[in-house]
Amino acid sequence: MTSAQQDPAPPPAAHGGPFGWLTEQDAVRRAAGLRRELRPRAADSPLVDLAGNDYLGLTRHPEVTRAGADACLRWGAGSTGSRLVTGSTALHAELEAELADFTGFEAALVLASGYAANLAAVTALTGPGTLLVSDAANHASLIDGCRLSRATTEVVRHADPEAVRKALDGHDGPAVVVSDSVFSVDGDAAPLTGLAGACREHGAALLVDDAHGLGVLGDGGRGAPQAAGLAGDPDVVCTATLSKALGAQGGVVLGPAAVIEHLVNAARTFIFDTGLAPAAAGAALAALRLLRREPERAARARSVAQDFHRRLTQAGLDATAPDACVVSVRAPSPDAAVGWAAACRDRGLVVGCFRPPSVPDGISRLRLTARCDLTDAQIAAAVGTVVETAPTAAR
Amino acid sequence: MTSAQQDPAPPPAAHGGPFGWLTEQDAVRRAAGLRRELRPRAADSPLVDLAGNDYLGLTRHPEVTRAGADACLRWGAGSTGSRLVTGSTALHAELEAELADFTGFEAALVLASGYAANLAAVTALTGPGTLLVSDAANHASLIDGCRLSRATTEVVRHADPEAVRKALDGHDGPAVVVSDSVFSVDGDAAPLTGLAGACREHGAALLVDDAHGLGVLGDGGRGAPQAAGLAGDPDVVCTATLSKALGAQGGVVLGPAAVIEHLVNAARTFIFDTGLAPAAAGAALAALRLLRREPERAARARSVAQDFHRRLTQAGLDATAPDACVVSVRAPSPDAAVGWAAACRDRGLVVGCFRPPSVPDGISRLRLTARCDLTDAQIAAAVGTVVETAPTAAR
Ligand SMILES: Cc1ncc(COP(=O)(O)O)c(C=O)c1O
Ligand SMILES: Cc1ncc(COP(=O)(O)O)c(C=O)c1O
Repeated sequence: MTSAQQDPAPPPAAHGGPFGWLTEQDAVRRAAGLRRELRPRAADSPLVDLAGNDYLGLTRHPEVTRAGADACLRWGAGSTGSRLVTGSTALHAELEAELADFTGFEAALVLASGYAANLAAVTALTGPGTLLVSDAANHASLIDGCRLSRATTEVVRHADPEAVRKALDGHDGPAVVVSDSVFSVDGDAAPLTGLAGACREHGAALLVDDAHGLGVLGDGGRGAPQAAGLAGDPDVVCTATLSKALGAQGGVVLGPAAVIEHLVNAARTFIFDTGLAPAAAGAALAALRLLRREPERAARARSVAQDFHRRLTQAGLDATAPDACVVSVRAPSPDAAVGWAAACRDRGLVVGCFRPPSVPDGISRLRLTARCDLTDAQIAAAVGTVVETAPTAAR
Repeated sequence: MTSAQQDPAPPPAAHGGPFGWLTEQDAVRRAAGLRRELRPRAADSPLVDLAGNDYLGLTRHPEVTRAGADACLRWGAGSTGSRLVTGSTALHAELEAELADFTGFEAALVLASGYAANLAAVTALTGPGTLLVSDAANHASLIDGCRLSRATTEVVRHADPEAVRKALDGHDGPAVVVSDSVFSVDGDAAPLTGLAGACREHGAALLVDDAHGLGVLGDGGRGAPQAAGLAGDPDVVCTATLSKALGAQGGVVLGPAAVIEHLVNAARTFIFDTGLAPAAAGAALAALRLLRREPERAARARSVAQDFHRRLTQAGLDATAPDACVVSVRAPSPDAAVGWAAACRDRGLVVGCFRPPSVPDGISRLRLTARCDLTDAQIAAAVGTVVETAPTAAR
C-alpha cells in the first residue's frame, strides 16, 4: 500500500459489478414476503417484550447493570486481546469458577459469545475420523461447528435417541453426539437421559448446548445437564450463553478440566478472538449471584411459560408445550405470521416471528418467551392480544 | 427429559472414556513446549502492556468507560436477542451510521465480534461456484469463513497481487478476493491497490479485514480502505473489529447498502447470534467520537511503532517494519520465545509471544504493539528490556 502503486481501474458501475446479483436476490425475497428489516428499539420503549430471551428479567436489573457498569469503569471497555495474551482478567477467572461451581461441572471457559463457544467445542473435540451425530433441529452455531470440523456429520431425526443409537452403531471410532438442550424455535427439550444412554453404550461423548436451559432448568436454574443428572460426568460437555437468562453477553464451555485445557490450546474461536468485554463478564457474574440468592426465579419463569401454553391452547391456538421458557404458536403462512406479529405490536406487544429460512421445516410461527417478572395481569393481557389478533386460519 | 426416563449407564472411568485422547495430546504439547496457560491479570496491574491491541489507548479512557457504563445502565447489560428480533437498539443504529460515515462506506452492520463479522461477510457473499482467493497469512476468522462457505477457496502467496491475478485468470464466474489489511502477526500491510486492480480486471469483489487498520491507518484513522482510496467503492467490502483501536468489543461489516441488506437477510452469524451488548456499542461509539476529535492519535500510534522498529533493529534484532502498530521480532525457537517473553514480564513488560500453531509458518516471535499514549521514556525503557533479555541467537 505504498503511494508508488498505481491507481486501480475504476470501480464497476453501481448496478452491475460483483454484487449485481444481490438486486435479484432482494427481489425474490420481497416477492416471497421474506425480506427482513432491522427495527431499532428505544431505551424507554413502552412495549411489552415477549420476544427476547431475558427469561429471568435480569438484563435491566439494577444489580446486574450496576455490576456491568462498574466492571467497565474498573477493568476498561474491552479486554484488549485474546484470552491467551492480555484478554484474561481476574474477573474472567472468577466468572469461570462460579459458572463451573453453579452448574456442577469441573471447569469452565468463557468465550465472546455462545456462537463462538459452540464453534470451539464442536471443532476442538472432533477430528478426521470422528463421527458427529447432530439433531436435525440443532441451532445454527452447532451446525456451523459441524461444518467447520473435519469430522463426518450425520444429521439424525429430531429428539430421537434411537436414531442416535443407530448412527453410532454404524461407526467404529470416536464419536460425539451434539444437541440443544432446549430447542430454540419450538422450546421442546432434548431427551438427554436417552442421548446419554446411547452415547455410553458406544463410548461416545455428549455435547449439550444449554443456551435456553441455563438459569431456567435444573435446581434453581443449574441447567439441563444438572436436571438430567449428567453435570460433571467425564463424558459430558455443555455449552451455554451468557446472553439469555444471565442477561449479558458471552458464551461458556463447561466440562472436565482436561477438555477445558484442550480448548485453551486448540479452539480457534477462543485463541483468535478477543476476550469477552469486562462489562459483560461482570454483569453475567452479578446475574449468576442474584440467581443463587433468588433460585425461585427459575421455577417462576417456567410456570409463566406453562401458563402461556395453557391459555393459548384453551383459546384454540396450536401452541407447543414448553419444556423451558419458549412457546411457539403455528401461523398459517409467512405472510400471516408477519401480519400477526405486526398486529400484536400495534397493540403494544412484541412477539418473535420465525419464518423460513430461520426455520428449517418451513413452518412459520410466532415465538413467545416467558419471563419470571411478568405479572399475572401482563400474562392475561398478552395472551388476549395474541388470541384476538390471530388470523382465522390459525385456529 | 421426563423423570420417567431410565438412568443412563454410568459414565466411563475418568481416565479412559471418550476424552482419553486428550491426555496424550497434552503430553505432546508439554514435550514440545507448546502448552498454553491462561494468566489472568489484575485490574491495577503495574505491568507495561505491549501485547494488547488498544492502539489508541482508549479502552481505559474515562470518556470511553463512562459511555460504556452509561449504556449498560440505560439500555441493559445485554441486547436480549438477535438483532432481527429484540437485539437492535437505537444505539446500534447510531453506531452503524457513524462507523459508515467515518470510514467512508455507504452502510454498516454491527455484529457481536470481528470474528462473527468475517464469518458473516465471507459466507453470505459467496456461494457454490464462487472462487474465494485468500491470502496465505489471513486471520483465522477469514480462514474459517472460507471453510464455512460453499465456495471454492484458493490460497495464494502472501501479499502478492500477481498470484491473485493468476488465480482469477483460471476462473470463470463470481469471485471474491479476501485479505487482512494489516496482517496480525507480522504487522505488514496488504497491497490493497494492487489487489483492487486485480479484482477489477476480473470483475471480482474485494473483501478487506481492517481489524488492525481501523483507527490507525488512513486520514485520522479512517482505515486502510480509505488510505487506499477504496472506501465506498461498489465492489469493496470491509470488516473490522471494535475491540482493538476502538477499545471495546464487537465487529462491523462496511460496504454498499445492498451488501449490508443482504447480510441482514442471509448471514448466519448475524441472524442467529445475540446482538452486541449495549455497553460495548456505547463504548465503541464514544471511542469513535473521541478519535474524530483527536485525529492525531492515529499518526502518533503509527510513529510509536516506527520508533520501536528503528530502535530494535539498531540493537541488532530481527524486527519487521510496521505498516501500522504491530512489530514482530523473530525468536530462535518456541522455547526461546517463551523464555524471552517471561524475562520481559519479570522486568515489568508484557509482550506477545506467538508460537505454532498460532503462526502458520512455524516461526516463533515476540509481538509488540504500539500505543499512542506511550511516552518516549516508556518506549526507551521497553526497548531496553526487550534488547537486554534477548536470547543470544536472536541477534
Ligand atoms: C440454542 C442456541 N445456541 C447458541 C446460541 C448462540 O448464543 P449467543 O447469542 O450468545 O452467541 C443461541 C442464541 O443466540 C441459541 O439459541
Ligand atoms: C485480523 C483480525 N481479524 C479479525 C479478528 C477478530 O476480531 P474479534 O476479536 O473482534 O473477534 C482479529 C483479532 O481478534 C484479527 O486480528
